[in-house]
Amino acid sequence: MWIDNLQYANWSEKIFRQMREGRVDAVHVTIAYHENFRETVLNFEQWNRWFEQYSDLIMPAYVVADIDVARETNRTAILFGFQNPSPIEDDIGLVEIVHRLGARFMQLTYNNQSLLATGCYEAEDTGLTRMGKQVVREMNRVGLVVDMSHSADRSTIEAADYSERPIAITHANPFDWAPALRNKKDDVIQAVVQNGGMLGFSLYPHHLKDKSACTLESFCTMIARTAEKFGAQHLGIGSDLCQDQPDSIVEWMRMGRWTKETDYGEGSACAPGFPPMPTWFESNKDFGNLEKGLRTVGFNEEETAGIMGRNWYCFYESSFHAAPAEKRLLNSPPSELKKNCSA
Amino acid sequence: MWIDNLQYANWSEKIFRQMREGRVDAVHVTIAYHENFRETVLNFEQWNRWFEQYSDLIMPAYVVADIDVARETNRTAILFGFQNPSPIEDDIGLVEIVHRLGARFMQLTYNNQSLLATGCYEAEDTGLTRMGKQVVREMNRVGLVVDMSHSADRSTIEAADYSERPIAITHANPFDWAPALRNKKDDVIQAVVQNGGMLGFSLYPHHLKDKSACTLESFCTMIARTAEKFGAQHLGIGSDLCQDQPDSIVEWMRMGRWTKETDYGEGSACAPGFPPMPTWFESNKDFGNLEKGLRTVGFNEEETAGIMGRNWYCFYESSFHAAPAEKRLLNSPPSELKKNCSA
Repeated sequence: MWIDNLQYANWSEKIFRQMREGRVDAVHVTIAYHENFRETVLNFEQWNRWFEQYSDLIMPAYVVADIDVARETNRTAILFGFQNPSPIEDDIGLVEIVHRLGARFMQLTYNNQSLLATGCYEAEDTGLTRMGKQVVREMNRVGLVVDMSHSADRSTIEAADYSERPIAITHANPFDWAPALRNKKDDVIQAVVQNGGMLGFSLYPHHLKDKSACTLESFCTMIARTAEKFGAQHLGIGSDLCQDQPDSIVEWMRMGRWTKETDYGEGSACAPGFPPMPTWFESNKDFGNLEKGLRTVGFNEEETAGIMGRNWYCFYESSFHAAPAEKRLLNSPPSELKKNCSA
Repeated sequence: MWIDNLQYANWSEKIFRQMREGRVDAVHVTIAYHENFRETVLNFEQWNRWFEQYSDLIMPAYVVADIDVARETNRTAILFGFQNPSPIEDDIGLVEIVHRLGARFMQLTYNNQSLLATGCYEAEDTGLTRMGKQVVREMNRVGLVVDMSHSADRSTIEAADYSERPIAITHANPFDWAPALRNKKDDVIQAVVQNGGMLGFSLYPHHLKDKSACTLESFCTMIARTAEKFGAQHLGIGSDLCQDQPDSIVEWMRMGRWTKETDYGEGSACAPGFPPMPTWFESNKDFGNLEKGLRTVGFNEEETAGIMGRNWYCFYESSFHAAPAEKRLLNSPPSELKKNCSA
């Protein structure tokens, strides 16, 4: 059972075949960065066409049982997620709609301040906004996982604590291994895992020690250190593979529609594009290298199976269905909006 | 020359006739609270129909000269504004588009955190966001006035300082006269006026001392105190008149689409609706009462004329056109986004 919990490749038959060659059973694919609701629906439509066209290679997964079906039929299950809340625009009612359409993960922010929380590129972080608290509760209700991969530290800790259900950092690495703005400090990872959440390790060079030159051993040793600190059962892969994307795509990711100036994000004026991937992880075909690397640094068979996919599978199992009403009543934090008549 | 720089009435022939009876030469009307771009265009369309239907009573104003035409033809000039940046969604390119369509004021926030800045109902305020700084510069460029009436203190001060052109608080009163969350502390008013900005006094009962029971004398005495502190030339009227609106409208203003729970805003569970207006300002017909009240508390003819409309007229004159390119080059603050290759 191998699962990659974050990819944004330039999808093609070639890549879907590589998923099969690499024996990747499920991939969480990003279908929105800055797209509004209608634009996101167009992306669902595009995937529906691919599911029809490549039905021998891929199928949609809405519940964890769909991944079992995919395995039995030698296909890769595709799960949908957003790296920004832009698909719900300013409308809390769209949370249930996008879940119904198939979205299973939504970041509360990309790099900037959103209506819900603060992104990791803002100068300051006020945590969850008024709308943010309302939306997290609604995501908990319907079974849409809160993803804080691109959010600032305080916002991430507040989301982990405020959320009634476990949240995820789908694609990032520990800051103390590679001090990138996008990587996570120990207190942030701790807040996520102590609430039952997951951390998916990223293979995106800007998140790696020595960037594109990072070795498999260095990467897997980092995973071993993280397992010692936080427990291997909370760890998985979220490779952030952006295979075959032109540099215009990373410009769109960084700049969307919010600025007329160039924002280089994790890059810089002299390295504005996508960095080359490490030679040992260039496509889905290389998934097996990760398993070998994990065994080499001393993970046993069970721990390795967990990190390679089983942990995400178990997380999906408890995350994608609607929360039982009783639980909601019991666990709902007191409303921020209630006011008595003296107010 | 009488100008009301903020109304959101339930528009009708009756109200347009009352504008004429009250000799109101220009009204800045709100056409968006939570509307997205397309919904805002529908509101422009509705006004186009009213301009056609009631061409003897009202006309659109895009530049200050249109107000002169309105006066010469005994009509009321209508200016458009937004109380939220929702019409530009996440798209800085829409700033120039909405200005071209006729928008002349835009609040960077309503009550909540926006993509641009922090609203006065949030627990904390981080000031202008990354997108906020980009959008303020673009508003300066095209001639769309930054309005901070519903914004939090730090965001308002930062906007006043960061903006290359004077900004406005179109409808609020001093906090020390009526300590409402929506009213403004002296340091906030100071930041706006010292940059050449304007403060429009609100007649909305939740912003008044003694609310609906506030007297004309108390209101005008407050204006006199404010003129002593900040200078009469920075003051005008922004009545926030919501005449003939059903309570469902104030619910929409407060809750938009961001919450499934009731938010009472400035009201409360036992006073959820629109409060009754003071008896001396129930409609546009009562505009003359303000002039009498201002003279009674000792304002001279020139000061009174300024507060009743001339100050807004002069502000419009320098605010609605595109900024000269040279000025932009000279005054543009250094970009937040520039990064050298060491980054």
